[in-house]
Amino acid sequence: MAGKRVLIVGGVAGGATCAARLRRLDEDAEILVFDRGHYVSFANCGLPYYVGDVIQDETKLLIATPTLFRDRFNIEVRTCSEVVGIDREAQTITVRDLDKEREYTEGYDSLVLSPGAAPLRPAWPGIDLPGIFTLRTVPDSREIRNWIGATNPRKAVVVGAGFIGLEMAENLAHRGMSVTVVEMANQVMPPLDPEIAVYAAQQLGSKGVTLVLGDGVTAFEQTGAGGLIVRTQKGAAFEADLVVLAIGVRPEAQLAKDAGLEIGERGGIRVDSQMRTSDPRIWAVGDAVEVKNYVTCEWELVPLAGPANRQGRVAADAICGRDTKFRGVQGTAVCGFFGMTVAMTGATEKSLLRAGIGDFECVYLHPGHHVGYYPGAQAIHLKLLYRKTDGLLLGAQAAGEKGVERRIDVIAQAIQAKSTVFDLEESELCYAPQYGSGRDPVNFAGMIAANAVRGDVEFAPWRELDSTSAFLLDVREPEEFAAGAIAGSVNIPLGQLRSRIAELPSSKEIWVTCGVGQRAYYACRILARHGLHARDLSGGVQTYRVMYPHGRLQPS
Amino acid sequence: MAGKRVLIVGGVAGGATCAARLRRLDEDAEILVFDRGHYVSFANCGLPYYVGDVIQDETKLLIATPTLFRDRFNIEVRTCSEVVGIDREAQTITVRDLDKEREYTEGYDSLVLSPGAAPLRPAWPGIDLPGIFTLRTVPDSREIRNWIGATNPRKAVVVGAGFIGLEMAENLAHRGMSVTVVEMANQVMPPLDPEIAVYAAQQLGSKGVTLVLGDGVTAFEQTGAGGLIVRTQKGAAFEADLVVLAIGVRPEAQLAKDAGLEIGERGGIRVDSQMRTSDPRIWAVGDAVEVKNYVTCEWELVPLAGPANRQGRVAADAICGRDTKFRGVQGTAVCGFFGMTVAMTGATEKSLLRAGIGDFECVYLHPGHHVGYYPGAQAIHLKLLYRKTDGLLLGAQAAGEKGVERRIDVIAQAIQAKSTVFDLEESELCYAPQYGSGRDPVNFAGMIAANAVRGDVEFAPWRELDSTSAFLLDVREPEEFAAGAIAGSVNIPLGQLRSRIAELPSSKEIWVTCGVGQRAYYACRILARHGLHARDLSGGVQTYRVMYPHGRLQPS
Repeated sequence: MAGKRVLIVGGVAGGATCAARLRRLDEDAEILVFDRGHYVSFANCGLPYYVGDVIQDETKLLIATPTLFRDRFNIEVRTCSEVVGIDREAQTITVRDLDKEREYTEGYDSLVLSPGAAPLRPAWPGIDLPGIFTLRTVPDSREIRNWIGATNPRKAVVVGAGFIGLEMAENLAHRGMSVTVVEMANQVMPPLDPEIAVYAAQQLGSKGVTLVLGDGVTAFEQTGAGGLIVRTQKGAAFEADLVVLAIGVRPEAQLAKDAGLEIGERGGIRVDSQMRTSDPRIWAVGDAVEVKNYVTCEWELVPLAGPANRQGRVAADAICGRDTKFRGVQGTAVCGFFGMTVAMTGATEKSLLRAGIGDFECVYLHPGHHVGYYPGAQAIHLKLLYRKTDGLLLGAQAAGEKGVERRIDVIAQAIQAKSTVFDLEESELCYAPQYGSGRDPVNFAGMIAANAVRGDVEFAPWRELDSTSAFLLDVREPEEFAAGAIAGSVNIPLGQLRSRIAELPSSKEIWVTCGVGQRAYYACRILARHGLHARDLSGGVQTYRVMYPHGRLQPS
Repeated sequence: MAGKRVLIVGGVAGGATCAARLRRLDEDAEILVFDRGHYVSFANCGLPYYVGDVIQDETKLLIATPTLFRDRFNIEVRTCSEVVGIDREAQTITVRDLDKEREYTEGYDSLVLSPGAAPLRPAWPGIDLPGIFTLRTVPDSREIRNWIGATNPRKAVVVGAGFIGLEMAENLAHRGMSVTVVEMANQVMPPLDPEIAVYAAQQLGSKGVTLVLGDGVTAFEQTGAGGLIVRTQKGAAFEADLVVLAIGVRPEAQLAKDAGLEIGERGGIRVDSQMRTSDPRIWAVGDAVEVKNYVTCEWELVPLAGPANRQGRVAADAICGRDTKFRGVQGTAVCGFFGMTVAMTGATEKSLLRAGIGDFECVYLHPGHHVGYYPGAQAIHLKLLYRKTDGLLLGAQAAGEKGVERRIDVIAQAIQAKSTVFDLEESELCYAPQYGSGRDPVNFAGMIAANAVRGDVEFAPWRELDSTSAFLLDVREPEEFAAGAIAGSVNIPLGQLRSRIAELPSSKEIWVTCGVGQRAYYACRILARHGLHARDLSGGVQTYRVMYPHGRLQPS
């Protein structure tokens, strides 16, 4: 009794997961995995830390070996085997054995493509000079380690300030290098909204990393001393003994394209909700496919391990006749560097606007990761996005030193369940003094947003602060106000507000601010009772400082 | 234009929150708060840490003072003012001014009771000897601090191994005392199921705390040297220079009872979903009320800060005519001591059985808090409970050194949304090597449970292990098996299973185990294909070690 024959192209993350899941569902299937590299199922997310010597033993990166696949799963893995063609009619693939330099074909009942994505490597002059690296595979990271061991580099340039770029910056700094990060965008971590990403930039700066934003690399040159010069569009030049390119990846969709499979507008393989390509016998998973964003419903490229694994399971289920579906990607992601954690889930303001979704609002808050009376509380800078009309959760981003990933995970779970800001008000989360607060940051975010959706408070738009003619009221204590306030704002401490209402104009909007937003909300409630049109600047002066980093902050 | 008059009895947690929320909703209301103590709105959860000198400045425990209530909220707070009677017909309360020893009445439109709960202090012989304390208020904790300062105690006995008892044990150890904890139940942390609580007990033991379980205190005696002897039911005697009673609390419901308000079977004030008592002008919130469990729908006493705050908001909303409702309590709780975190949410096996709910199953797992290849991974011991028929999430408990509260919070959010184990399979959570795994522990829990609900695996009941006639198969490697295995189990490593099927009996159930459960699941799938009736012992030998701590573990 022969089972079906399933061939899998690519044995990392999605492909490896798919293979193992297939075996659990079908003991009789014949399963073969082909990978052009030397390794399958390696820990690609760990590579920056192997370069940084935080992970010192290369074998730890190898999650599963071909031997384990054979013994545990009865799955044959062929490494150094590149699949170079698909004959969809004949249901065969052509495999090039890279060791023996020969080609052969294998037939399939089902074919799974998990080719991943390749680091971008633009055709800049000098790109192939020694000392310039990308990072995708175990051998890539070994090469960088060898370079560090051989040349003892003192200066490194990382091109790209995305998640991998910042992880590389930390790891190269950990190896003792002075690090410069060059990023084309005007912010680090381009997927995030800038007013959260700015905390990452501040942290990098405070830890000695040189950040060059809004500038792109144009060329590399070799110096007489054997080093490199990195030249930029704006005419800057940076010395480097080591360069790592981390400017993103592109899906490895050529094999699929050559086979005539449908490719999406973003360049990834197009699949249905069961990860099936336009050929019903071919599935595709992982970084090479386009996925639907769970919140915006836009097609996206989201090269993340969690979704890749999930997709591998869905494809295996589908191949075995189960009706499991992939629900899309929320884009939950986290990045840690120099003691800081930045995380996100769901949509950002950027991605909502890109998708043409205008019915949203956001709140900013800066609560401690646990109660202030217990030593060591650290601020979590949190931005929550929700649908203005009904409070449906759309996304969240946060930065801070502690407890960030926990809050984003809770909100991620809530977004998955299509929960609202009203649900977050009622979230019942772990609280003891060293863990949180009776009102967790997640509750606070929900309460602030829910107040707005219910109409108990109206927010003022931070981005119109420069052009508004509103009266700017700051309700902090005089000593706080004196330490720095929005230029043109007038100080009436909250405790005096009830007796000083007459000082406020009844003909103008009053935009109210304080330290982090709480007192301003109280003030708005008082002013509303007196018939004044008050609006709350969400997140207070703490938000102002990042919204207007070069802005109008006045020591008054 | 005079507003309504709202009187609030008790100014901590729920009462304080209610007062502040009332003001935000109604600028015109007259709001008075009465508290018999010297302080309102203090951080009662911080008291153990003030005793432990982790929090050193007493003023940090005072979250809001009467002055702040007056200036910020226009709320009058009267401390040292005990409310001793309610005249519901006249809508007045009788207040005893404890400083001036006089009584007076105040009229109300709405009355909110937030009297809290009092520590149990049984009438054991010697209970009033010097050096025996309970902990509820700032003065209580100051007294213990003074006692420590004055007598420099070397030995402490904590009576009760609940959350507060274990926090006290840590804090007294932190002050240099040798600590013994005496607990009537056969486990620490009685609200938890024993197979998770056992990790807490192990940690306490490894940190030098003496645990006495299944024994109750009967009396205290004074020694000649001025110390204390703590005597127990089983005839043991422990020396102590300091005793802290932490055996639970009872709701302060006497005032409500005297006023003829309905009291529940657990002794708490009975309220509706808007926190209204049996008198429509009287509300009650916090530790003194009974609440509906969100999962089991049983009435419970749940003295926790988060729900108390939420209840205060709901009562304020209701008083102002809003239709906000309290959704009940999940019982999410966390406790940290000696570097360990134990947390729970929703129902336990105990609470389900108590509620007569039999349609449930549980899975055990022991994943690392992040990927194993990144240094420092710590196991999270997790028990997930779900409805057997459809996978609805019912509860979770976990213990470990890192990442515990995060996973329990995610599951708490999922339980709130009535999510299922299938949803946890698809949770998209923060992952980078130092934060988690491409398959987070939450995903793993969901996958294991979902496999069972779908019928892909059947669990064997751990509690029947002693009486089963099943064939016990251990699929670990020989060296693992040799280091300790379930007595009577037979070792066939997973990698050899396919070729050694013939060694297994076809006439018996086969119960399969491994290290933590993963390989056993793979094995079950293989065996099922061969027509054998295999069942998985969830969580593997790791679970066995805690299920049978004095059990049949054999070095084979």
